[in-house]
Amino acid sequence: MRPQDIILRKRDGFELTEEEIDFMVMGYTFNKIPDYQMSSFLMAIYFRGMTDDEIYYLTKSMLNSGDIITFDEIEGLKVDKHSTGGVGDKTTFVVGSILAASGINVCKMSGRGLGYTGGTIDKLESIPGFNANLNEEEFIDIVKKNKFSIIGQTKNIALADKKIYALRDVTATVASIPLIASSIMSKKLAIKTDLISLDIKVGNGAFMKDLNEARLLAKTMIKIGKKFNRKVISTLTSMDENLGYAIGNSLEIIEAIDTLKGKGPIDFYELCIQISANTIYELGLTKTLEDALELAKEKIYNGSAFNHFKEMVLLQGGNISYIDNPTLFEKPKYIIPLYSKEEGYVSLIDTKSLGLASMMLGAGRVSLGDNINHMVGLKFYPKIGDYIKKGDLISEIYSDANDNNILDLVNNSYKLTKEKTDFKLILDVLS
Amino acid sequence: MRPQDIILRKRDGFELTEEEIDFMVMGYTFNKIPDYQMSSFLMAIYFRGMTDDEIYYLTKSMLNSGDIITFDEIEGLKVDKHSTGGVGDKTTFVVGSILAASGINVCKMSGRGLGYTGGTIDKLESIPGFNANLNEEEFIDIVKKNKFSIIGQTKNIALADKKIYALRDVTATVASIPLIASSIMSKKLAIKTDLISLDIKVGNGAFMKDLNEARLLAKTMIKIGKKFNRKVISTLTSMDENLGYAIGNSLEIIEAIDTLKGKGPIDFYELCIQISANTIYELGLTKTLEDALELAKEKIYNGSAFNHFKEMVLLQGGNISYIDNPTLFEKPKYIIPLYSKEEGYVSLIDTKSLGLASMMLGAGRVSLGDNINHMVGLKFYPKIGDYIKKGDLISEIYSDANDNNILDLVNNSYKLTKEKTDFKLILDVLS
Repeated sequence: MRPQDIILRKRDGFELTEEEIDFMVMGYTFNKIPDYQMSSFLMAIYFRGMTDDEIYYLTKSMLNSGDIITFDEIEGLKVDKHSTGGVGDKTTFVVGSILAASGINVCKMSGRGLGYTGGTIDKLESIPGFNANLNEEEFIDIVKKNKFSIIGQTKNIALADKKIYALRDVTATVASIPLIASSIMSKKLAIKTDLISLDIKVGNGAFMKDLNEARLLAKTMIKIGKKFNRKVISTLTSMDENLGYAIGNSLEIIEAIDTLKGKGPIDFYELCIQISANTIYELGLTKTLEDALELAKEKIYNGSAFNHFKEMVLLQGGNISYIDNPTLFEKPKYIIPLYSKEEGYVSLIDTKSLGLASMMLGAGRVSLGDNINHMVGLKFYPKIGDYIKKGDLISEIYSDANDNNILDLVNNSYKLTKEKTDFKLILDVLS
Repeated sequence: MRPQDIILRKRDGFELTEEEIDFMVMGYTFNKIPDYQMSSFLMAIYFRGMTDDEIYYLTKSMLNSGDIITFDEIEGLKVDKHSTGGVGDKTTFVVGSILAASGINVCKMSGRGLGYTGGTIDKLESIPGFNANLNEEEFIDIVKKNKFSIIGQTKNIALADKKIYALRDVTATVASIPLIASSIMSKKLAIKTDLISLDIKVGNGAFMKDLNEARLLAKTMIKIGKKFNRKVISTLTSMDENLGYAIGNSLEIIEAIDTLKGKGPIDFYELCIQISANTIYELGLTKTLEDALELAKEKIYNGSAFNHFKEMVLLQGGNISYIDNPTLFEKPKYIIPLYSKEEGYVSLIDTKSLGLASMMLGAGRVSLGDNINHMVGLKFYPKIGDYIKKGDLISEIYSDANDNNILDLVNNSYKLTKEKTDFKLILDVLS
C-alpha cells in the first residue's frame, strides 16, 4: 500500500477499506507517513465525506492508537460528559455535581483551553490549591468517595487524534463532520463508561454554526457509539449567547458556585438541569424525563450538588473557603463597567467576539504553552430578547490593563433593534 | 496573512487574490510555509478549481520564483516545443529539425525522464559523445549556427513549480487542470520565444485520458499565454497507441533518424509533419496550412531537416557516424521476438503497459537518480485497426535479461477483436 494511492481513492470518491484507513492512521501516528500526505488526505475527506463504515474504521484506528482506560474498580453507573466548546461554558461543574448527587459516578478527564473557548482544567485551577494532575489511582479513589472528580488526561488516549487534530488546525480541515465525530468519539470511547453525555454547541460562538450540521454531527456520533455498543446522548444547545454572564476562569467558577447555591443566571441554570435530567433519564434512573428534571432541581435546592462540588475541591487539595465564600477570589487591577448608549431589544450577540475579548484579556491561550491569568475576563449581561435602555450596565471587564481595543470589541459585540427576537437555548436532544 | 486562512478561503470556494496566491507560492518555495499546508491547499484547488485570474496569478508567481531566460542575442523567430509526455515520443527531434530547416530557431531545454515516459535528454545521450550539459552561451552559439539545439535546464527556472510538482506527485494532486496548466506554462514562459508549440497527449498512455479534459487543458494554457502576451498553439494527439514502433532511448533515436531520412513509421512521420506545419503556419511563414504541410514534407525529402539534426549532434560533441549509420548503436544481450497466438483486428493497445515494460527493462527511471540503460527497450508493431494473423511479429524486446514478466506484460498489452476499430492520431488543434 502507498499513501498516495489511498489518498487518490478517497479523492475520487471510492469507499476505503478498514485496512487502508488503519494504514493511514497508524502510519501517520507512528511517523511512517509524512504530514503532507495526511493533510491532503484530510482535505480529500473534507470534500468527499465518509461512509458510516469508514467513520467507524477511522474512529477504531484512532481509539486503538492510544491507551484504553477502564474504571472496573468503580461500582455503579458511570458517565462521561463532553461539551464541544462554548463561551462561558461552565456546565461540567454543575452537571457533574448534580449527577454525583443523584448517585452517578462522573469520571471526567479534561483538556486545557486553546483559542477563544476556555478549558475546564484552567477554570478549576483558579481555585487556590486545586490539583488536577492526579494519577489514575488517586482519581479512582476520589470518584469512589465523592462520585465526581475532574483531572487532566493521565494517559495517552487516542494518540492518533492528538497528532491529526494538530494538523487539521493548521490545514483548514477542522470543519468536517466525519473528522469531528471520529475525533471526539475516539477520545470518549477510550474511557469506559455507561453513558457518554454530549453537549453540542451551535451558533455564532461555537464551532458548529448551523443546527442541521450539528444534528448531523450528533447523529454521526450516536451511530459511532452504537457500533461500539456504547450509549450516547446529545443535547444541542445554542451558542448565540454566552452561557450565563461570566467568561473567564475564576469568574466562571464563581458563577458555577452561585448556580450550585441556587442563585445562578437562569439560562445557565436551566441548561444544567436539562442536561443532567437527560442523562439521568437516559440511564433509566427515573421513569419519565419530568421526574428526572425534578430530581436534578432537588439536588440543587437541597444543597447536595453543591456539597459534591465542594468535596471534590477538598479532595483535590483546593481551598474550600473560596467555595464557601467566593468573594475571596482575587480580583484584577481594573473592573471596567460598560453602559449602553442606545436602547432597543437585544437581537444579536457576537459570542465569539466575547470569547476573543476574554482570551485577549489573558484568560485564554493563543498557543499551547501560553500562561493564563485566572482573574481576568468579563461579565456580559444582555440576553437575546432583553430590552436595554440607555445607561444600562452591559458588561464588566475584569482586566489587568486598560485596553481600549477590548472595550471596543465588547461594545460592538451586540445589536439592538426595535423588534424583539426570540431565543431558544435547548435546540434538540438526540440519542 | 496566515496560510490556513487562505487554504480555508480556497476550500470554501472564494476567489483568491494575487497577494494570497503569491504568499502561498513564495512562502512555500522559500520554506516559510510547510509541505503539509501546501498539500492541503493543493487538494482544495483540486476540488474547487481556479478562476482564470487565479490561474494567471499562480503561473505568474511560479514564473517569478525562478530565472527568466531571454534569447535576445538570437535573431529571427524563436519557438519552444513541449510535449506533455507520451510512450515512444521522439517528436522533438524530427519537429525541431524540420523547423530549423524552415528558418525558425528552436531553443529547447529539456528534462530527464521519470516514470514510464522517456526523457528527451536521456534519448540524446544514447548517441556516444552527445553533451546536453552546455551553458547558455554555448547553447546560443549552437542555435545561431544551426537554429536547433537541445540542452538540459541551465538555470533554476520556475523554482516553485519544481517544489510544488514533487509534492503533488505524492499527495494525489497531480490531475488538476489549473495546476497542470500553470506548471507547464510557468516553465515555458520563463524562456522567451515567439511561439510555444504544445503537443498534448491524450489516451491510455498519457496523463490526460479524456479528450474534453485535454481540450480544457489546452484552452487554459492558451488563455495563460494570452495574459502574458505570448502565442501558444496546442496540438492534441492520441496516446492510445505508442508513437511509431520504438520505445527506449537509442531505439527512439534510431527511429527519429529513419524518419528524418524519409523512412520512418507512417503515424510518427505524419504527426511530426502536422505539428511542424501547425507551428510554421501559426508563425505566419506560409499563407495556408496546406503550404505549411508541403514545406514541412519538403524539409524531410530534401534532407535539410536531417542535416540540422546531424549538425546539432556534431556541435554538441556527438559521434555523427552513428547518425549516418544507426546500425553502429550497440545492442543489448537479447532481442526477443514475440509472435501473435491469435488473429483479429487490433482494437486496443495498453500504451502505458508498453511504457512500463520499457522502464522495467531499464530504459527509464523509477526514481530520480536511477541509472538508465540506453540500449534496452522494445519495438511494438501493431497499430489500432491492423489485422493480425497467427504468427505475425508483434514485438521485439531489447533486453539485457530474459525476464518473463516483461514478456507477459507486452503480450497482454493489446486486444484483438472481430470488428475493425477506427483510430485518429491528430485529435484537435487549438490556438
